[in-house]
Amino acid sequence: MGENIGAAARAMLNFGLTDLRLVAPRDGWPNPAAVAMATKADIVMDNVRVFETVADAIADLQHVYAATARPRDMVKMVVSPKAAATDLRNYSAAGQTCGILFGKESHGLSSDDITLADTIITVPLNPDFTSINLAQAVLLIGYEWYQAADKTPDRFISNTERPATKVELGHLFTRIEKGLDARGYFDSKIARRPIILRNMRNMFQRFEMMETDIKAVQGIIKGLSLPLKKDGDT
Amino acid sequence: MGENIGAAARAMLNFGLTDLRLVAPRDGWPNPAAVAMATKADIVMDNVRVFETVADAIADLQHVYAATARPRDMVKMVVSPKAAATDLRNYSAAGQTCGILFGKESHGLSSDDITLADTIITVPLNPDFTSINLAQAVLLIGYEWYQAADKTPDRFISNTERPATKVELGHLFTRIEKGLDARGYFDSKIARRPIILRNMRNMFQRFEMMETDIKAVQGIIKGLSLPLKKDGDT
Repeated sequence: MGENIGAAARAMLNFGLTDLRLVAPRDGWPNPAAVAMATKADIVMDNVRVFETVADAIADLQHVYAATARPRDMVKMVVSPKAAATDLRNYSAAGQTCGILFGKESHGLSSDDITLADTIITVPLNPDFTSINLAQAVLLIGYEWYQAADKTPDRFISNTERPATKVELGHLFTRIEKGLDARGYFDSKIARRPIILRNMRNMFQRFEMMETDIKAVQGIIKGLSLPLKKDGDT
Repeated sequence: MGENIGAAARAMLNFGLTDLRLVAPRDGWPNPAAVAMATKADIVMDNVRVFETVADAIADLQHVYAATARPRDMVKMVVSPKAAATDLRNYSAAGQTCGILFGKESHGLSSDDITLADTIITVPLNPDFTSINLAQAVLLIGYEWYQAADKTPDRFISNTERPATKVELGHLFTRIEKGLDARGYFDSKIARRPIILRNMRNMFQRFEMMETDIKAVQGIIKGLSLPLKKDGDT
């Protein structure tokens, strides 16, 4: 279906893949439905090549993977999308040509097509609901391909703020301690003062505060230390 | 849009997630378009809960993630889908309640909605083509959630075949060696015989043959050793 081709083209481009090869598309080529669905993925659509057979489509490739559920009737290496992505990145880095076959399980990839592939990629899915469409399979495998080379750290703080230094945290804490002492906060529980202060300090340590967080909390402390306005309410 | 809700329900169930909460759906609820799109994901659709505000929808949760591109105007922890999946699995294992907010960038999740989340999940995407729909974001994050607990090995041979033992491989190789010697294959290059044999053995070692592969190659050797039929052709 044209819609599937267009959606697959978009999923490819989401992860920087642009070489789309079609084998005997049902509705011929070019296909207006595919173009309509592939909004803004022109770079993929403009380079589409059409082949009559799978063998023709993969003729120049050195490593071919087939995306399909694990076949029960053949002996073949099966890899996760993640492992495939590692392989494909390694092959590409060595200047070797690679491709991935996709097709609808029911009437897309035949056993003969799968036999032409070196390796099978099986997307892990809830065994009680394994139905995904072709473009979704492209999306998930493209995602792993992209991830395999992506340098973005797994965790970071957005914005350009910097973590607070220990001396900034120390100043904040001194201010809290003095403010509480000055207002007699500990007078009725003076024996527990060291434990309460230690717990408070541990809490602020755990917050992994940024420089701007320190300033914000300093602002809150300053604001709460002001006398109530006449119509103010605690 | 109903179609997005139905597609999201399917993507959730693909990875074993079933608790779908909607905030003020545009076309009300229930929505026939959503049900039509959610084919066979009844377990998700039957349990949908509708809330008026994001705050209501997340009221009982202890950890809330928002799936969105990295916001430039707030200081927030940003994690990859993979890192989020690890966190969420850990929280769940500790009996803590978690949720992920999804919405259309343009008019779905507002900055106020995102502020209600503890952490942002940003899907790594080709910076030149970052457009994915809501159901695709659910699919990719659901995939990592599923992967984080999936025990399927990254690489394995399909079918129940077992790898060949070294003695089976040794028998195969002895047969090849004797067959070649008996036919005078090495007579014209007797000095290179040890090197050729070593290279052949290394080749078969590299094939990581299964028990059935040994039998198949034994069959090929046996077949090729038969005399030509009268109308046969080499």
